Amino acid sequence: MALLEHIDSPADIRSFSDEELRTLCQELRDYIVACCAENPGHIGSSLGAVEIAVAVHKVFETPDDHLIWDVGHQAYAHKILTGRREAFRDNRKLDGLSGFPKRSESPYDAFGTGHSSTSISAALGMAVADKLQGKQRHTIAVIGDGAMTGGLAFEGLNNAGSLKTDLLVILNDNQISIDHDTGALHNYLVRFTTSQRYNKLKRKVWNTMGEGHSRNFLQRVVKGFKRALFRHQGDTINLFDAMGFRYFGPIDGNDIIRMTRTLERIKDIHGPILLHVITTKGKGYAPAEENQTLWHAPGTFDPKTGKRTGRPSDRAKFQEVFGTTLLELARQDPRIVGITPAMATGCSLDLMMKEMPERTFDVGIAEQHAVTFSAGLAAGGILPFCNIYSSFSQRAFDNLVHDVALQNLKVVLCLDRAGLVGEDGATHHGNFDLACYRPIPNLTIAAPMDEEELRQLLYSATQDSYDGPVVIRYPRGCGNGTPWRDTPFRLLPRGKARKLHEGSGIAVLSIGTAGVEAAEAVRKAAEAGIEVLHYDMRFLKPIDTEALAEACREARHLITVEDGAIIGGLHGAVAEYLADHALPHSLTPFGIPDRFIEQGKPAQLHALCGFDADHILQQIFALSAENA
Amino acid sequence: MALLEHIDSPADIRSFSDEELRTLCQELRDYIVACCAENPGHIGSSLGAVEIAVAVHKVFETPDDHLIWDVGHQAYAHKILTGRREAFRDNRKLDGLSGFPKRSESPYDAFGTGHSSTSISAALGMAVADKLQGKQRHTIAVIGDGAMTGGLAFEGLNNAGSLKTDLLVILNDNQISIDHDTGALHNYLVRFTTSQRYNKLKRKVWNTMGEGHSRNFLQRVVKGFKRALFRHQGDTINLFDAMGFRYFGPIDGNDIIRMTRTLERIKDIHGPILLHVITTKGKGYAPAEENQTLWHAPGTFDPKTGKRTGRPSDRAKFQEVFGTTLLELARQDPRIVGITPAMATGCSLDLMMKEMPERTFDVGIAEQHAVTFSAGLAAGGILPFCNIYSSFSQRAFDNLVHDVALQNLKVVLCLDRAGLVGEDGATHHGNFDLACYRPIPNLTIAAPMDEEELRQLLYSATQDSYDGPVVIRYPRGCGNGTPWRDTPFRLLPRGKARKLHEGSGIAVLSIGTAGVEAAEAVRKAAEAGIEVLHYDMRFLKPIDTEALAEACREARHLITVEDGAIIGGLHGAVAEYLADHALPHSLTPFGIPDRFIEQGKPAQLHALCGFDADHILQQIFALSAENA
Repeated sequence: MALLEHIDSPADIRSFSDEELRTLCQELRDYIVACCAENPGHIGSSLGAVEIAVAVHKVFETPDDHLIWDVGHQAYAHKILTGRREAFRDNRKLDGLSGFPKRSESPYDAFGTGHSSTSISAALGMAVADKLQGKQRHTIAVIGDGAMTGGLAFEGLNNAGSLKTDLLVILNDNQISIDHDTGALHNYLVRFTTSQRYNKLKRKVWNTMGEGHSRNFLQRVVKGFKRALFRHQGDTINLFDAMGFRYFGPIDGNDIIRMTRTLERIKDIHGPILLHVITTKGKGYAPAEENQTLWHAPGTFDPKTGKRTGRPSDRAKFQEVFGTTLLELARQDPRIVGITPAMATGCSLDLMMKEMPERTFDVGIAEQHAVTFSAGLAAGGILPFCNIYSSFSQRAFDNLVHDVALQNLKVVLCLDRAGLVGEDGATHHGNFDLACYRPIPNLTIAAPMDEEELRQLLYSATQDSYDGPVVIRYPRGCGNGTPWRDTPFRLLPRGKARKLHEGSGIAVLSIGTAGVEAAEAVRKAAEAGIEVLHYDMRFLKPIDTEALAEACREARHLITVEDGAIIGGLHGAVAEYLADHALPHSLTPFGIPDRFIEQGKPAQLHALCGFDADHILQQIFALSAENA
Repeated sequence: MALLEHIDSPADIRSFSDEELRTLCQELRDYIVACCAENPGHIGSSLGAVEIAVAVHKVFETPDDHLIWDVGHQAYAHKILTGRREAFRDNRKLDGLSGFPKRSESPYDAFGTGHSSTSISAALGMAVADKLQGKQRHTIAVIGDGAMTGGLAFEGLNNAGSLKTDLLVILNDNQISIDHDTGALHNYLVRFTTSQRYNKLKRKVWNTMGEGHSRNFLQRVVKGFKRALFRHQGDTINLFDAMGFRYFGPIDGNDIIRMTRTLERIKDIHGPILLHVITTKGKGYAPAEENQTLWHAPGTFDPKTGKRTGRPSDRAKFQEVFGTTLLELARQDPRIVGITPAMATGCSLDLMMKEMPERTFDVGIAEQHAVTFSAGLAAGGILPFCNIYSSFSQRAFDNLVHDVALQNLKVVLCLDRAGLVGEDGATHHGNFDLACYRPIPNLTIAAPMDEEELRQLLYSATQDSYDGPVVIRYPRGCGNGTPWRDTPFRLLPRGKARKLHEGSGIAVLSIGTAGVEAAEAVRKAAEAGIEVLHYDMRFLKPIDTEALAEACREARHLITVEDGAIIGGLHGAVAEYLADHALPHSLTPFGIPDRFIEQGKPAQLHALCGFDADHILQQIFALSAENA
């Protein structure tokens, strides 16, 4: 840390020698590994992008020049270099640094990112803003090859390529997103960058580019290079040229000297420029290089050995329940297929993928396509289970409305990472699915409270009584340990709640895993002699009006509990029921309030939002005193 | 109509001679022009696609083979050929034909469309479904060059190009969407298809392709053709080849003989195929060819002269209010820019575009990009007014959440065509904006009741007291004639309702233009001696809790009126207010019920949903009797 410990802003590295830059990159790697070993994070992509961060901050005048990191979890070196070295020890912790760039955290974070494929559009907006205001600034977007498959990135390229505003897009091509990349674009990039003739040419041309050449010379060289390329190799086509970008590269994005030299040479070329750099995910840390999918976000580990030190829970994750159960169902029902937009391992669809590769589809980072493709499958007589992380499913909102619900096609949309996801923070919380999908006609919307309920909902969704689109949302991580493995399949009647506790005076209505907190509060209340009626609603839509009617008969005070936005969610559904029946009951909502919630451990965030067992219990006591 | 009147299904045309096919195309054109002259529709794109429809139905075994029309408003010839010739006279009418393909309407409508860019994803799903089930069928998607700029189309291409499933994509390139196309893809297609060398080569190669050649020969020719192309013209790059498609064309898509010959030759080639056809929007009807933007959907006209016969209203359209007011504001405030995804004329941004081309951005059909680009502009200190049709804004839901609201960036999102849009029907109704955007933190959501309120909301949104993202939604078409032109700008306080009528016992709370119906009911009630309190809420978020408190003090019965989904909308907001305050008021919601609503005149649809003045008045009388 001899160099790093004196760096408080990028200005401190702008006079660095080549040797110092190389040392700095090594120190950054060591520091990222050391910090992430104790405090888990997205280590693989951040190690791969160290040289990009150093080179951009060396060559450009950040923060006056704008740097936008697509997805953003690869920006650790950027955070460390921009005044957040010590704060990085609290990366992803409550009140600590966000794991993603965030405008309110630093002027160096030009645009907040988290979801994929936004950077070109945002960078173009900032570049146009500068142009309109006569500001002379550079704007740089760094985007991975995985993120490039998202339709939004294409829309951004298409607009940038015609507007001709100055803009540098660095394509960080590590040929892996979280799982291995798929899609024609990926195949194209691989074909393009591994072509022997291409690489021979590339070496020849780029090696001739010494220090002293003018930009003019560079342009001539590149032009000639391309002409040579196309002449000699009709099937190697440059997609980005076709989109109106001037294409440079590919170069080794983990070679800091090559990176800085190249950026210096191209930085003042006008118009939209794409620099294609090849990097290695996990670069410089052998375990992370060897198993890139595992080391995308490995949890805690021993930095010396790479041995992961996180203690596995004795409880299963909801992801395992999903993957295992879907495979069982698919073995029995040939109509079933699985679809994921680039999250096969994360959602455990990889279990089915191994056994039934022809019936599982990783469509790449392309949530819109995932849902409309599923609608097409359903229209063709197939029963698709499309698994998308809840917050990413927002990308497919229109596809859910227009292609699935409007045609009442039976797509089972499994929303993983629903509710507060924890350390990934505001961009990744799945707050909005319940509230924002409830107004869509024809949907069945369910949320299991525990592992067994998820298993049975997945089974039930295959049955004919679930006769349209089904949304099943469940959180990241472990359930409460309810036995589920190999339990016999049984139909959960559509739209029916289950009663968990008899009581009167006060009724708790919960949906999903937040019901576990509610149940604990109800149990503790019972120990204190207060018997509270508790329904696990199971379905937000159709909502069980018989259960609501019973709750309103038995209790004057209602409490709703949900791991989702209070506005419009279960709280909204119950409020509408009360108002439509002119009922004077009190209603206390527990859930996510009307603001964006930052990162932290899920339990911390539940407490912060007030829907943990303690807060619910206090409210039960307060209402009980009122009743008395 | 000598041929057409005997055609009840595509089977009737499969033995047609070349001459009969030509005659049929002419008859189809004449019939489309005659019908649309009386009963308005999307005439321009349907005239351009006549030969595509005839050729596909001639060559393929529809409906066993699947044909999917992207966007779908160009499918009139398809509808007429597939058993709906007479029904077409009631195109777009209540209980008549949908103006778009619709699965429930005909087995020939393989997949419902309306929003752009869905066809490749849906077609791929259907093709994969067939493959999994061992069915030997063809799947054909017809997509325009405008729709091809949507990110979803790129996601579909990317997946199809790697899956290698049999799929034919016909790129219907008329080089215009509704307004003139923009974007790099468009430039690319123009460059590609107008290149002299390309066209010379094309003629040479395609002209050698007589009747008798085998597919093998064709493949050799095409391969050689491409090699020649790339060798001779390094800068003409085939984008679709890069995406894993085998590319054929371009050919004249209005030449029925060339179209059928080509389809016959390529129909059994395996894998993803793209056939690029060039058509003319409005083909065969001179007025429509001459002004393609106007004749996208011209209203009624005299078929002989092309003179449009629709009587212009003496009231202004909301679109004119938007376009005129924004231009006025932009003249005063250099921060203001306008953004539209391909609807400059439809939303009247063309008014500003003419005067300030450098401050208006037509980004093509790319709603996601439009919103994230706007967020980038806002982050750069610009004040973007981004205008998107409400139902299309669903495409940008995540961009609104993740890029705009989360960062609390001041983007003014103007949602045109909100509520029930009328004849365009279920795919185009903007039902969901109020209900589904209400749970998003940081948003101000407003809906003007009349022209003047829209004008003042647009002005108010530029003021500092509106300090985050602002959503303003308003319907298609004319307001109630409230004077607005040149009225002085005045600030409408954020989150404040306006009282329209004093009263007690019953309170009507309306939002947006549905308030006009409510006001009429309130006026009629007053004539009958019943004084009803009426608030134009103006803002759904933040909602005016003082107005709600007054309504609850003054009245026991509340009525909400909105041109949007009842679930979660204004009804939801008021219900939550009541429940949170344990108030026993009755609440009667008027708005769009929990089902998809078909096409018809707006007034018919309002009556169908029950939120016209008559239904509201009846409810006022009923509640008044209850009060008495």
